Amino acid sequence: MMWFVVSSALLALVFASFLAYFVVKQDPGSKQMRDISSAIREGASAYLKKQDSTIAIFFLVTFVIMLFLAYFHLMNWSMPFLFLEGGFFSGLAGYVGMSIATLANVRTANAARKSLNRALQIAFSSGAVMGLSVVGLALTALSLSFVLVAHIYGVSAATGALFAFGMGASSVALFARLGGGIYTKAADVGADLVGKVEEGIPEDDPRNPAVIADNVGDNVGDVAGMGADLYESYVGSLIAALALGFATFKTMNAILLPLSIAASGILSSIFGFFFVRSNERANQNSLLFALKKGTISASLMIAFLAYLFVRGFGFSNSLYLVILLGLLVGVFIGWITEYYTSSGYKPVKALAKSSLTGAATVMIEGLAVGMLSTFWPVVAISVASLLSFYMSGGAQNFNAGLYGISLAAVGMLSTLGITLATDAYGPVADNAGGIAEMSGQSEKVRKRTDALDALGNTTAATGKGFAIGSAALTSLALIATLKTIFPQVSIEILNPNVMAGLLIGAMLPFLFSSMALRAVGRAASAVVDEVRYQFKHLKLLSGKNKPNYARVVSITTGSAQREMILPSVTAVLSPIVVGILFGPSSLFGLLAGALGSGFVLAIMMSTAGGAWDNAKKFVEDGNHGGKGSSAHSASIVGDTVGDPFKDTAGPSLNILIKLMSMVSIVFAPLILKLALMH
Amino acid sequence: MMWFVVSSALLALVFASFLAYFVVKQDPGSKQMRDISSAIREGASAYLKKQDSTIAIFFLVTFVIMLFLAYFHLMNWSMPFLFLEGGFFSGLAGYVGMSIATLANVRTANAARKSLNRALQIAFSSGAVMGLSVVGLALTALSLSFVLVAHIYGVSAATGALFAFGMGASSVALFARLGGGIYTKAADVGADLVGKVEEGIPEDDPRNPAVIADNVGDNVGDVAGMGADLYESYVGSLIAALALGFATFKTMNAILLPLSIAASGILSSIFGFFFVRSNERANQNSLLFALKKGTISASLMIAFLAYLFVRGFGFSNSLYLVILLGLLVGVFIGWITEYYTSSGYKPVKALAKSSLTGAATVMIEGLAVGMLSTFWPVVAISVASLLSFYMSGGAQNFNAGLYGISLAAVGMLSTLGITLATDAYGPVADNAGGIAEMSGQSEKVRKRTDALDALGNTTAATGKGFAIGSAALTSLALIATLKTIFPQVSIEILNPNVMAGLLIGAMLPFLFSSMALRAVGRAASAVVDEVRYQFKHLKLLSGKNKPNYARVVSITTGSAQREMILPSVTAVLSPIVVGILFGPSSLFGLLAGALGSGFVLAIMMSTAGGAWDNAKKFVEDGNHGGKGSSAHSASIVGDTVGDPFKDTAGPSLNILIKLMSMVSIVFAPLILKLALMH
Repeated sequence: MMWFVVSSALLALVFASFLAYFVVKQDPGSKQMRDISSAIREGASAYLKKQDSTIAIFFLVTFVIMLFLAYFHLMNWSMPFLFLEGGFFSGLAGYVGMSIATLANVRTANAARKSLNRALQIAFSSGAVMGLSVVGLALTALSLSFVLVAHIYGVSAATGALFAFGMGASSVALFARLGGGIYTKAADVGADLVGKVEEGIPEDDPRNPAVIADNVGDNVGDVAGMGADLYESYVGSLIAALALGFATFKTMNAILLPLSIAASGILSSIFGFFFVRSNERANQNSLLFALKKGTISASLMIAFLAYLFVRGFGFSNSLYLVILLGLLVGVFIGWITEYYTSSGYKPVKALAKSSLTGAATVMIEGLAVGMLSTFWPVVAISVASLLSFYMSGGAQNFNAGLYGISLAAVGMLSTLGITLATDAYGPVADNAGGIAEMSGQSEKVRKRTDALDALGNTTAATGKGFAIGSAALTSLALIATLKTIFPQVSIEILNPNVMAGLLIGAMLPFLFSSMALRAVGRAASAVVDEVRYQFKHLKLLSGKNKPNYARVVSITTGSAQREMILPSVTAVLSPIVVGILFGPSSLFGLLAGALGSGFVLAIMMSTAGGAWDNAKKFVEDGNHGGKGSSAHSASIVGDTVGDPFKDTAGPSLNILIKLMSMVSIVFAPLILKLALMH
Repeated sequence: MMWFVVSSALLALVFASFLAYFVVKQDPGSKQMRDISSAIREGASAYLKKQDSTIAIFFLVTFVIMLFLAYFHLMNWSMPFLFLEGGFFSGLAGYVGMSIATLANVRTANAARKSLNRALQIAFSSGAVMGLSVVGLALTALSLSFVLVAHIYGVSAATGALFAFGMGASSVALFARLGGGIYTKAADVGADLVGKVEEGIPEDDPRNPAVIADNVGDNVGDVAGMGADLYESYVGSLIAALALGFATFKTMNAILLPLSIAASGILSSIFGFFFVRSNERANQNSLLFALKKGTISASLMIAFLAYLFVRGFGFSNSLYLVILLGLLVGVFIGWITEYYTSSGYKPVKALAKSSLTGAATVMIEGLAVGMLSTFWPVVAISVASLLSFYMSGGAQNFNAGLYGISLAAVGMLSTLGITLATDAYGPVADNAGGIAEMSGQSEKVRKRTDALDALGNTTAATGKGFAIGSAALTSLALIATLKTIFPQVSIEILNPNVMAGLLIGAMLPFLFSSMALRAVGRAASAVVDEVRYQFKHLKLLSGKNKPNYARVVSITTGSAQREMILPSVTAVLSPIVVGILFGPSSLFGLLAGALGSGFVLAIMMSTAGGAWDNAKKFVEDGNHGGKGSSAHSASIVGDTVGDPFKDTAGPSLNILIKLMSMVSIVFAPLILKLALMH
């Protein structure tokens, strides 16, 4: 069975390589286009290199601490190494995604000169490279490490040790999401504020020194950051299911089931890939349908395969329904996200209308929409976790119920290969549009890349639904795993240590978001200063001098790196500090509180940001006065505030709540030893 | 002992009457001033009458339901009546406060023509009328009802039945805070947007038809709303302490202690009142010192009296320290609130500076400040609740520890008489300024009222600190009381019912805030439409026609009333619905989740709103370009968004979390009977 899992994972990597080859062999277009593309590529690589060296320091310090702990028998020797491994593959997944994206952007732009369908194929293939690499790398590394560690330390210790792998993956994800998010927003603000607003030149104008940094940002934030993020979600859901499964049933089948579901998901994703195609006269709807065909076929396929495995391993039909439920809830949350963020529905239309009365009403309405949008996802996850628990027999066997919850998360993320593909293709299309503009392509070409880009914004909502929903379910499963380590600890809500932890936990996502928002602000003003300086001293408007793109890229990189450290380290340290000061009971309170408020705040920020973005686009499409009207200015304020909400703070919170749980699990023995209260 | 409690409470009422008499006999000034004042007075009365009739319907329906439940032995017969009583006295406290405030405003304005100290005396006396009426009415009604019900049903049933009293008080408070908050912000936006921005006339210009409604708003929101709010906090903290005390120790001393502390607090407040005076050459700092002398003397006095009572009732010294701790934490949170919202410190200065780069950066920075400001209050409350628990012997006797937490809340609110006085005097000074402006007083008079007003903004921060801090501690105590009703129910965090409740609970404050924000928006646009209409059709700018003030007042009243219903009813019903659908375990999760996220969100919204307000004032004082600069416009956007944050949604959340707990306690037997899951 393990062979099936590993070969499916390897198949994903082989298929991804094949797609990468297909992308690379496409015509990269004119010299001008290639030059622009390689500038973006170099900027993105430079950023990742810098980021990797920052992360390396964090990993080195943590690795040494973990070696000490292993020496003092506070963890087993495999864990420091698994931590490094988890981090390494997370970084690798991001790197692969970003590499192919920066190769695909120019080729998509060039293909758009000839045909819409051709451009879609290239962009979507590069997205699929990313999607399949993420799931392929994650499943290969995870299952091989498990086999190896289980061989040395036994199965039970191995399921525990894997949390070090997860902690590595989550740490990289938090750094990448946060650093990438800060980078992309700082560059965006710098380019827009000085270029568009102050100097009055259009978007992606080559005279703007921040234009390359802006395009680099799409890659390091939306591609590499998101890749690491979903890699982390995928890994987190799997290791929680493995640990809970073995703790409950003490059988290999309980471990093999989640792995097989993941492996079937990979096969299903590859199957679904072949259904994604469009024709030349495609409009927005038929393009969307083309992508949906892919995800729907993959979902049908996994629904079939999952049944075989659940029955084959001797589990009950209701466990199969739990996995399906997970899948459906992910789709449902995605649909809700789409409803609140797409300009086709009431909320965004009302938000666009509120721009008629100024920036203040846009802000209030946007925040209200974000807050309102939390209702259904929270209800869906609450009901799904209850149903999963009881359908998996939780009433008779408590841990079996918790295992069910973790399987729902695995089910939700099983088709990640293809959902991530539809998500990751967006920034490629966005970049292709930028390259088309900078290289002066015709209106028709730009229209095609715009159509692909707009589509990406819609499919991104679905991806976010899965990321948010799985984060909540996985966190729940992780807290449950922590309890198997501390079976004696009181976790009653009224225990004052639990309650104190809960209050502090509920506050942490706010503290973290505050830091993230300010970090974007500071990084952006550094970029703004530099861009203003170049416009003034190099007299860029005249077009005589070439802007110094590289300097803007390097300044943005530096700021993003500095700014990502404090919030990330706070996140990692807080469970250890609270656990030691207030005892293990507080730790559970902390994690539950952070899950509760972090989950809600993440949805609110992501949705509000998406709604503001699309409300602005709706106004720009000629509504309420269109471009240049006072409504447009008001809607731009909303969009600017929404950017760090949806691309920096919001998605980081999903990682934060899981990372805090994994840190707690990995450092549990240390916390127990040093705790001042019990 | 009960005589001491009741006579202290009655003394507060007597002293309040004496102060009211002092205020009334002051010279109300010229005919023009009296006319303006009586227009405000009539508007405020009309609003309260309308609000009372809306609330009456809610109370009638709930009363009938409660009678049914009493008939089916699901509560005792005293409870429906206690519910009415609690609501009635809450409304009365708000009414008294508003009546004296609308009499004091014109007298303060008139006194300011002669002397600053005289104006301070009148304004502060009217604040003290409010403060002492709130505590006097609450303590009288509560202790007499307790004696009566205990006489009929026994002490244990009586402590339980008092929660119906608390539920009545909290329901009125929520309606008043929300309705008043919607009213005051809708009128404010209507007056400012059309008057100041569109027509370019100054604040409080008598040609503006919304100018009376705007001044009415200060009274119904900041006076009546706040009065009902703190009445509710005071009642809540006392009944929780009574119930936990008797459940734990089964002695009358455990009941008499919190009541005596409250009674001593009243005596201390009256004592402190006599220290509040200033001289003619007072500046901002010496005025603030004048008020602080009052609260500090009251605190020293209660510190002395509390010791006598703790020892007299035979409790340990450490319980005395718990009460002091509560008092100190309230002061600390007030200080933190002041730090984050006063223009004297870094956060507001940085926020004002961010207005140089536009409205978007003002928004991001303000939200970040609000989020950051949650850190210390949450840590303070967490540590305080842990210390209170263990210092009261919670390690040996769990319930004794919880009783300690409730005593910390009682200690925090013990000097409410005088802290509320320093808080409630602010809107009177604000109104006095409005009347001075409208009646065309000299620059010197306006300067004096401005000085009093600015002072009010600072002291309001302290009042907010007490309201927020006590809300968290009281909620904790209320959840603990609920557990004494459901001793068998599992409240472990990992129980999926608890967790589902926790997630939904964490979402509710967001849902509620969303509704509140949108309600303000809708009410404001109704006002804007009317004001625009009047300016156009009555040609108000020319000054020939008199605006129809009454119509604006009536439209604002109507909208505020309609808009306050849905969020309030959602708050009341959600614990019952969740309790029935998901079982009593979920109820605990719901309350803990709502406490966690509601507490943090309330601080965030209140602080961000206050910071935006003062950042705008800081710019208006001539910084960053001063009035009319683009920085000023940007700071106005922040202030406009902040208004419903700090005056509508934020403070309502404090009430919401307590009301939900009280509803759960009162309807516990019903929920237990109908619950679908156990």
